[in-house]
Amino acid sequence: MADNAGTSFDLVILGGGSGGYACALRAAELGLKVALIEKDKLGGTCLHRGCIPTKALLHAAEVADNVRDSADFGVLSTFEGVDMAGVHKFKDGVINRAFRGVTGLIKGRGITIVEGEGRLVSPNTVAVNGTHYTAPTIVLATGSYPRTLPGLEIDGERVITSDHALQLDRVPSSVIVLGGGVIGVEFASLWRSFGAEITIVEALPRLLPAEDEASSKMLERAFRRRGITARTNTTFKAVERTDDGVRLTTESGETLEAELLLVAVGRGPNTAGLGLEEVGVALERGFVRTDERLRTSVPGIRAAGDIVPGLQLAHRGFQQGIFIAEDIAGLNPPVIDETGIPRVTYCDPEVASMGLTEAAARDKYGDDGIETFTYDLAGNPKSQILRTQGFCKVIRAKDGPVVGIHMVGARVGELIGEAQLIYNWEAFPSEVAQLIHMHPTQSEAIGEAHLALAGKPLHVHG
Amino acid sequence: MADNAGTSFDLVILGGGSGGYACALRAAELGLKVALIEKDKLGGTCLHRGCIPTKALLHAAEVADNVRDSADFGVLSTFEGVDMAGVHKFKDGVINRAFRGVTGLIKGRGITIVEGEGRLVSPNTVAVNGTHYTAPTIVLATGSYPRTLPGLEIDGERVITSDHALQLDRVPSSVIVLGGGVIGVEFASLWRSFGAEITIVEALPRLLPAEDEASSKMLERAFRRRGITARTNTTFKAVERTDDGVRLTTESGETLEAELLLVAVGRGPNTAGLGLEEVGVALERGFVRTDERLRTSVPGIRAAGDIVPGLQLAHRGFQQGIFIAEDIAGLNPPVIDETGIPRVTYCDPEVASMGLTEAAARDKYGDDGIETFTYDLAGNPKSQILRTQGFCKVIRAKDGPVVGIHMVGARVGELIGEAQLIYNWEAFPSEVAQLIHMHPTQSEAIGEAHLALAGKPLHVHG
Repeated sequence: MADNAGTSFDLVILGGGSGGYACALRAAELGLKVALIEKDKLGGTCLHRGCIPTKALLHAAEVADNVRDSADFGVLSTFEGVDMAGVHKFKDGVINRAFRGVTGLIKGRGITIVEGEGRLVSPNTVAVNGTHYTAPTIVLATGSYPRTLPGLEIDGERVITSDHALQLDRVPSSVIVLGGGVIGVEFASLWRSFGAEITIVEALPRLLPAEDEASSKMLERAFRRRGITARTNTTFKAVERTDDGVRLTTESGETLEAELLLVAVGRGPNTAGLGLEEVGVALERGFVRTDERLRTSVPGIRAAGDIVPGLQLAHRGFQQGIFIAEDIAGLNPPVIDETGIPRVTYCDPEVASMGLTEAAARDKYGDDGIETFTYDLAGNPKSQILRTQGFCKVIRAKDGPVVGIHMVGARVGELIGEAQLIYNWEAFPSEVAQLIHMHPTQSEAIGEAHLALAGKPLHVHG
Repeated sequence: MADNAGTSFDLVILGGGSGGYACALRAAELGLKVALIEKDKLGGTCLHRGCIPTKALLHAAEVADNVRDSADFGVLSTFEGVDMAGVHKFKDGVINRAFRGVTGLIKGRGITIVEGEGRLVSPNTVAVNGTHYTAPTIVLATGSYPRTLPGLEIDGERVITSDHALQLDRVPSSVIVLGGGVIGVEFASLWRSFGAEITIVEALPRLLPAEDEASSKMLERAFRRRGITARTNTTFKAVERTDDGVRLTTESGETLEAELLLVAVGRGPNTAGLGLEEVGVALERGFVRTDERLRTSVPGIRAAGDIVPGLQLAHRGFQQGIFIAEDIAGLNPPVIDETGIPRVTYCDPEVASMGLTEAAARDKYGDDGIETFTYDLAGNPKSQILRTQGFCKVIRAKDGPVVGIHMVGARVGELIGEAQLIYNWEAFPSEVAQLIHMHPTQSEAIGEAHLALAGKPLHVHG
């Protein structure tokens, strides 16, 4: 399929995931001649082993919960189990369709797709299967892989990563999920809906430790109600295989047993064996060091996506890829504010956030420099119809704009678009409060929180 | 329960629905002494016979569809039917909880609740059961009722309104829905999910005639796929009872038969028998005529909600009620832009809109004065996971701000909060395009449409 119209380009991109292909699309739009090198499939982790497949599984999980609870809504049914072959068929259908879409887009913009493993051989040359692709700008966008811990061997059968979990041919009876971050809680949530017994083991004091503390607490409470056990402040020491599963030992000497251990301790950067060090690209803990314009230590080499320290999110990759394309095309785009990137964890209930946590806002503005309001979804009729619990918490700088929005509840991830505008456009609560939200929607929770912060609470005890 | 602390107030409000109670809450917050008169239940149509119960039924409908289609997602189940007693129990639970909430709020702010039927006896006096409540400002907020057509008699059994439909003790085998507006299509949608055969009869050329033409077309296509028949351009002539249902005759002489006829031809204002004409309040077609500050023709008398010509939406009532309270308290709030009020129809797929339709935008800016882009949800992975079809259509003034956003698809109603900010804050497409949306969400559709309109399409063929 490699369409080698030539080996000299304006831009050579190593990696066809979110960051790489977005960069390629935007650069081509701006008239640049682009080569996009990918050793696996266009779309990368997000499309094939990350965002998309997990969200498909999470939707199947929602359907399973709906079926199980249907009588509560007056719908009579019998739940007969989860057929993983059917789940995978659904999931793979979604992936394949999106894969065809992104491949069509890339081809449609005249981008040269190079299949194979690329290796940097000079600051402006990438070698793929003996062919050299040169350009004044090289973009590194090689993505990430599921990490493990020292002494913890992934066997792909009993001790697995998210890559294996996405292919699992059965619903496990029980799983220990090692790591209470985004990936861990999403699998915990969907497997629980499918019927598994789940224990999350997290070394830090709370689930989703990067989120606002209130969000972690609310999620832990919701998980407890769902029968998911979260063992926070619990450090992994060792794991061994048993006759029918695994036995995990904690630092404190406790043992936990289950059919499977999912290792979800984060994702490491794919930066080894690419010739980066040889060409002089500075790394830190394996990640590519960049400045705020995503330039590496080597002139002409930029980096985007999960290999750049920070949030590992597909849309951050999109934004970085677009930024680089516009920057090298001379459009001088503004530097990306990483705090302005929205974050959603798609477990049930969902956790969504924009901007600063309360702790970060206190650090920045001082204890007397912020005001917060937490609107309880118990007062939001649409959330009551969905029978979800949660909140919308808004943090403002005192007499200033909104600096953080944190939400927990079924489907609140879709509300983050509005929150993204509020944060990035530095809106004052009074500016949002003036716009009475659609009734009855969950988005009213955002409206009510801003009304309260603006000193004019509506459906809130004043 | 009437707590007659006195009969002289700063503000007397006739009607405890959305417009009335929001006005009461805000006025009390601002230190005014308020009497709120309600003959039925606080919360009004929205809470007891409108928004809230229909959305509860629509969620039960979604659950029924999920159960029926569960195998497509790998979840094995058997659908055994809809138990309307169970559906009503769910629905009534939601209503009762919200009712307790709003009642608690109103009492908590020290508002005097007067139970009974009020009647205007002078420009500053309302009589309730022989007691006179006086105030320098009277707010009329008496709401609306389901209308019928001349010669069409509602019997409450075979020929019913939405009030009866919400109490129906069974799933009808077949229904003719007379009227393809918001109420008609919502009932059509939920009854179809419950298993009924549905024919919508609409005199105008399309369903939801107030929406953008593209939205109507997309909804009609989706309804067709769901097996809902829409007979547009079809005028009602007569209906008669048959042995087991109704027979409707159209102007063109066709007949249609069904178990029930739902009359959903709009809602009329509750303005009769309230003493309005006697005191000199000018009406037009039964509605209360007001200026843009919601003042009626009689000094001191204002009006809010469904009796004021325009959109009949609960949150418009909230906004108007708050406006009046702030205006009489001297805060001089800006006049409400009715085009800036969000609109959602909660059928499946949902239809959501902000600002101008394309036709209205062409009228205002000229055929060459606008640009539009329609993003197809087929390219949106989260929508594909939900297996919904639809779009996000954005209309901008040429070289100017966004003036209209129209969406069709499952759950898009929750995206209207973001659209509301974009429209009301007069954002340019480029300002939205700079903020790459959370992946994978449906809200990305809004992002993609703005990227395309800003001349930098991402996941869109350029």
